[in-house]
Amino acid sequence: MKRIILLIAVATVAGALAAPASQLANKEDAPIFVKTIPDGYRDWRLISVAREEGNLNDIRAILGNDVAMKAYREAKLPFPEGTIIARLAWSHDASEENNKTFGRAQSFVAGAVKNGVQFMVKDSKKYAATGGWGFAHFNDGKSADDTLLHTCFGCHQAVKDRDLVFTRYAP
Amino acid sequence: MKRIILLIAVATVAGALAAPASQLANKEDAPIFVKTIPDGYRDWRLISVAREEGNLNDIRAILGNDVAMKAYREAKLPFPEGTIIARLAWSHDASEENNKTFGRAQSFVAGAVKNGVQFMVKDSKKYAATGGWGFAHFNDGKSADDTLLHTCFGCHQAVKDRDLVFTRYAP
Repeated sequence: MKRIILLIAVATVAGALAAPASQLANKEDAPIFVKTIPDGYRDWRLISVAREEGNLNDIRAILGNDVAMKAYREAKLPFPEGTIIARLAWSHDASEENNKTFGRAQSFVAGAVKNGVQFMVKDSKKYAATGGWGFAHFNDGKSADDTLLHTCFGCHQAVKDRDLVFTRYAP
Repeated sequence: MKRIILLIAVATVAGALAAPASQLANKEDAPIFVKTIPDGYRDWRLISVAREEGNLNDIRAILGNDVAMKAYREAKLPFPEGTIIARLAWSHDASEENNKTFGRAQSFVAGAVKNGVQFMVKDSKKYAATGGWGFAHFNDGKSADDTLLHTCFGCHQAVKDRDLVFTRYAP
């Protein structure tokens, strides 16, 4: 009996995962986090760059898919459906090679991938519970657990007037 | 007479500028610097990011055209003909907004465009005198003068074993 219940549970979960977003939109089991890495994000265009000191201690790039880039360049808010913003980061490594050429210690370059890859995916229905954005964080291709992901929406409230997006476009 | 000579000189220079690269290739008057901004470079893909302290004091992104990206990802050296690498830079600005959210001073973002835009254009014949690379630096859309551009090739000698290119691909 226990085994049958388990099988039904597995089938239900599998069904929910297979259901198109439109079917999930108004249900309580609607996903609030993004658990699949968007295809081809490393080829997206550059929105901006940033540097985090402290515990993060990285240098980062924020890329956008075509929908994101168009919205940024037209200063369109809120971001349209289908917008995806990616945050990549690497270790902030001193470059001995560059320093030698410059004749002084001043150069830092991107080293190994660090602090995971993050995404914000705009789908107002699917992610209605979190301001229309699905949040994602992947370490080595694996999604962070929901405990971490639950922290995203709260912090992004700080920039509610920019549709929850911190990064501004670098000209 | 002086005026006629001047006119002939102007016409000769104009003719040389209008001549296609192939005709200039083996002439002594071949260009060694790039004086036109490559089209659409802001839409190119990201090679890496970097931070320069000291007098430069900027945060930067290095972008590549399709030829560059393919070569980087296939670790192909020397870079093929048609490779163009762009270096963009912005002021390295503390972000009060981000710091407030993080609860500590740690965040720096890209501000105004700074230290111009630079390019390396691979054309082994046209730029044979400078290792097959044409160097460029533009401030507000205007090319830097040759005095500055003459410094490029010398410094890039430091990475002769990587075809004169400092930047490594950020995964």
